[in-house]
Amino acid sequence: MAELEEMRQIMRDFSYSRDWDKFHSPKNLSMALSVEVSELMECFQWMTEEQSSSLSPEQLENISDEIADVQLYLVRLADKVGIDIGSAVDKKIEKNELKYPVDKVKGSSKKYSEYK
Amino acid sequence: MAELEEMRQIMRDFSYSRDWDKFHSPKNLSMALSVEVSELMECFQWMTEEQSSSLSPEQLENISDEIADVQLYLVRLADKVGIDIGSAVDKKIEKNELKYPVDKVKGSSKKYSEYK
Amino acid sequence: MAELEEMRQIMRDFSYSRDWDKFHSPKNLSMALSVEVSELMECFQWMTEEQSSSLSPEQLENISDEIADVQLYLVRLADKVGIDIGSAVDKKIEKNELKYPVDKVKGSSKKYSEYK
Amino acid sequence: MAELEEMRQIMRDFSYSRDWDKFHSPKNLSMALSVEVSELMECFQWMTEEQSSSLSPEQLENISDEIADVQLYLVRLADKVGIDIGSAVDKKIEKNELKYPVDKVKGSSKKYSEYK
Repeated sequence: MAELEEMRQIMRDFSYSRDWDKFHSPKNLSMALSVEVSELMECFQWMTEEQSSSLSPEQLENISDEIADVQLYLVRLADKVGIDIGSAVDKKIEKNELKYPVDKVKGSSKKYSEYK
Repeated sequence: MAELEEMRQIMRDFSYSRDWDKFHSPKNLSMALSVEVSELMECFQWMTEEQSSSLSPEQLENISDEIADVQLYLVRLADKVGIDIGSAVDKKIEKNELKYPVDKVKGSSKKYSEYK
Repeated sequence: MAELEEMRQIMRDFSYSRDWDKFHSPKNLSMALSVEVSELMECFQWMTEEQSSSLSPEQLENISDEIADVQLYLVRLADKVGIDIGSAVDKKIEKNELKYPVDKVKGSSKKYSEYK
Repeated sequence: MAELEEMRQIMRDFSYSRDWDKFHSPKNLSMALSVEVSELMECFQWMTEEQSSSLSPEQLENISDEIADVQLYLVRLADKVGIDIGSAVDKKIEKNELKYPVDKVKGSSKKYSEYK
């Protein structure tokens, strides 16, 4: 559990030292998270699916930064609402196993979206 | 590094056993990630900032599930483009320290958005 | 019906003359639309609700451009899937009247989100 | 100018009669707009680009409703910040003509994103 926990502490210190806590309501952080995800998605918007699987070093560096931004805001938001991401993921994976049973959804995009 | 690495493996197995790899181009995963973030943001959209800081157990359970979905799609996307989230975050934090120097941005929403 | 129709024609000419039709699959346009909406939302993310109601001329000019971008991509997407926005809105308004009956949802944020 | 103007009036009446004006700060409306766009994008997320161009009647009806929701929230947001969408679009189209000169960006996805 060290990894996400470490990010959580870094984000706390980063915000505290800049006096940004006052901006970091969960509502605002959910907006910031959404904006960062869009910057990540923007990298892919005019690519074909194939192109999105063979990226240049320059594209990868850009995407790496955007992925980090998303991760950091997600950690910050979870911290502000008092949710432990590791536990949340554990619970959700269990639900997903029940929601998408292998024998029902296997290989089918139609069923995939129906079950989604 | 165990935590995110573990999620990565779980998502690989989950997708493989359902034959969903064919849907998981980085382009598609960036869209799915964005859709999940919106479901998270939807929880907060009509709340005041104050309300978003004092959530009911029911709201928290809902938000916990949405945070998990975002985390899982982020891990899956990072895996598909070959990016290690931990390293990406380390690099980005260094950049952020330079981009938002404490003495320049401290406490100011105006400066905050200028530096953003 | 002239206004949206006119935008539709302008976007057709704009894309055709730049040979961008090949990028404008409905899937891609939905991504572009989402990215533009995020740029619009970014203008508001660190504001309080009150601040978002009293904007400076500079903020308004920025927001005006983003609103236009969203409108233009929406018109373009609707055109590409063969949907007339005016008719779509007419149908949806009828549905909304049934979905949110005045006497049930009036004034209540709780009911608002329940009915949402 | 009747079409968007008419929607504006309908949304005013709809919100007023439900006493929802108090929820409709520009900040909140930008979030709601973003959530609606994601619901629209969700329709396309697991489709190939080709599939997104040949939709079933059922898919089209769903997409039509989502397009309408986006249009209505955009009209509502523009109204709340005092922006006329028609004029905003006129100004933005002029800027786009300068930003994406035909002879420079024609047909190239590389240049497209550079100019974006």
